[in-house]
Amino acid sequence: MLRVPYQELFDTLLRVLLKLGFEQSRGEKCAQLFSESSRDGVYSHGLNRFPLFVTMIRNGVINIHAEPEAMMSHGALERWDGKVGPGNLNAYHCMERAITLSRLHGIGCVALAKTNHWMRGGSYGWQAAESGMIGICWTNTLPNLPPWGASDPRVGNNPLVIAVPRAKGHVVLDMAMSQFSYGALASYRARGELLPVAGGFDVDGNLTRDPGAIEKSKRAMPIGFWKGSGLSLTLDLIAAMLSGGNATHQIVADPQRETEISQVFIALNPGFNGDGTSGARIADKIIEYFQLPPGSTSERVRYPGERVLRTRKENMEMGIPVEPAIWQEVQGM
Amino acid sequence: MLRVPYQELFDTLLRVLLKLGFEQSRGEKCAQLFSESSRDGVYSHGLNRFPLFVTMIRNGVINIHAEPEAMMSHGALERWDGKVGPGNLNAYHCMERAITLSRLHGIGCVALAKTNHWMRGGSYGWQAAESGMIGICWTNTLPNLPPWGASDPRVGNNPLVIAVPRAKGHVVLDMAMSQFSYGALASYRARGELLPVAGGFDVDGNLTRDPGAIEKSKRAMPIGFWKGSGLSLTLDLIAAMLSGGNATHQIVADPQRETEISQVFIALNPGFNGDGTSGARIADKIIEYFQLPPGSTSERVRYPGERVLRTRKENMEMGIPVEPAIWQEVQGM
Repeated sequence: MLRVPYQELFDTLLRVLLKLGFEQSRGEKCAQLFSESSRDGVYSHGLNRFPLFVTMIRNGVINIHAEPEAMMSHGALERWDGKVGPGNLNAYHCMERAITLSRLHGIGCVALAKTNHWMRGGSYGWQAAESGMIGICWTNTLPNLPPWGASDPRVGNNPLVIAVPRAKGHVVLDMAMSQFSYGALASYRARGELLPVAGGFDVDGNLTRDPGAIEKSKRAMPIGFWKGSGLSLTLDLIAAMLSGGNATHQIVADPQRETEISQVFIALNPGFNGDGTSGARIADKIIEYFQLPPGSTSERVRYPGERVLRTRKENMEMGIPVEPAIWQEVQGM
Repeated sequence: MLRVPYQELFDTLLRVLLKLGFEQSRGEKCAQLFSESSRDGVYSHGLNRFPLFVTMIRNGVINIHAEPEAMMSHGALERWDGKVGPGNLNAYHCMERAITLSRLHGIGCVALAKTNHWMRGGSYGWQAAESGMIGICWTNTLPNLPPWGASDPRVGNNPLVIAVPRAKGHVVLDMAMSQFSYGALASYRARGELLPVAGGFDVDGNLTRDPGAIEKSKRAMPIGFWKGSGLSLTLDLIAAMLSGGNATHQIVADPQRETEISQVFIALNPGFNGDGTSGARIADKIIEYFQLPPGSTSERVRYPGERVLRTRKENMEMGIPVEPAIWQEVQGM
């Protein structure tokens, strides 16, 4: 396995971004967000997605100079226009704004229209948690998921992120509304493995654990069957209505041209009682019980975000694993 | 099937509540919330749950005279104490307060500690939507769900409600974090049916569609396997941290003594752009596409809340179906 030091990955991505015309500080933030995704083990939305990001800049889908602009405001709720700027920079900016609003009003919400793929959604959950805030954010996507009861894609997999700050390790849930992403299906297929649970339907409409059969049918399964189907729908409704931007059904169903999507960023201040330690104690107790309740004879369970810290440490010490072909491609850019 | 007119159901429940000592207007609101649940087809949390509600009042678990009190406020975020009052009245009051906050600040959030079971969570979603607001609310519960990877209950099924206002029919998602409630499992078993999809594990740890096997093992399944497990955890964290109240692990694991639970109510103003019609148009288009996209050869799909309107109409015209034994019991109270 090829491993690359964090700094080398960051420097390489930054060099490419500057060459593409990024302004220095924006290039640094963008390179940082990509590098941190790989550092944290979310390879699919780190280095591995960088070539597609560059393609979309070259094709004019992403405008690297565009900065998000506030369009409307009502106290703690704001609407921003992403102007098809880089999705990760837009998302970072809007979560930062939601955090600021939550400092002023206890809770803050930014609805963002006309943005691009935010890459790793968890980034903005970690961002909120690092600021001591609870973060809730989601994005809509192109239609890539049949709702329960249909065989054609009518909803997006609309990733939802919920982050809770905690000194001993933030809890960060980062989940799409499909049971497995297409990236995950491809990985299982490449390893010749069956999915651990049914992940969708084959072309005959039977539930299956065969990743290839789902890639072929394009019938991935919503989490919780009808429940994830409804959840995905409501997330899309709220994102489009609050932002005034596109809903899933209006987004081009081609990953290379998926743009002008809508997102929501909410931050909540758990320290609004002026006593942060009480919230911290509550969180620690909940996590301890979740991992292994006192006296339990059952299994130790990992909380969302727990594995990230271990991966991060390992990758910072040993270097970040990269796909040699992709690494070579990006080095040559 | 025995059917009872709405007014008769309401009058009967109100009479019992007044006899128990409810103040008139609070008794009316409480009877209304129970009656509307049955009217809308959510029988498990309407009349069918009323006897347990009365038992908990008689046992002193629920204090019928207690009114929720604001404890702390930071702009659009407030913390309330439910003082173990009736759960449905507390929830209704707090969603009303969140709606008021959203009128003032665009978004409003009320975190409620020390409350009781809110009965049908969807009630407060409909309430927000009827006020023209997006409503998001959830509750924690006693530990009744093993997280993915464990065999003992460490999280609650923590129902989550998301409601979006829409003139042609509000979209109201009301979903617990378990794939099937214990009430649903009992219904399937009574009808001698298998579950449509795997709903949990048998005592040997195998996924099963046999409702009786899950009732026996107490190993219901989180929606989306590991995903619902994490979602349930984060909802509990936020509810306990914001309200300062109990987390799931602190709630007595006995439905008859389940009390002092924590809830969150969020309202968002989709008309904050001053042009409600644009949001309405967006919602209509999304729902039309979800139900049956133009040119689709696939199936028509129902959105969350769609069936409620039909059931409501039918039950208002023909009377509300009641279980004869429960109806007789309540009439005799």
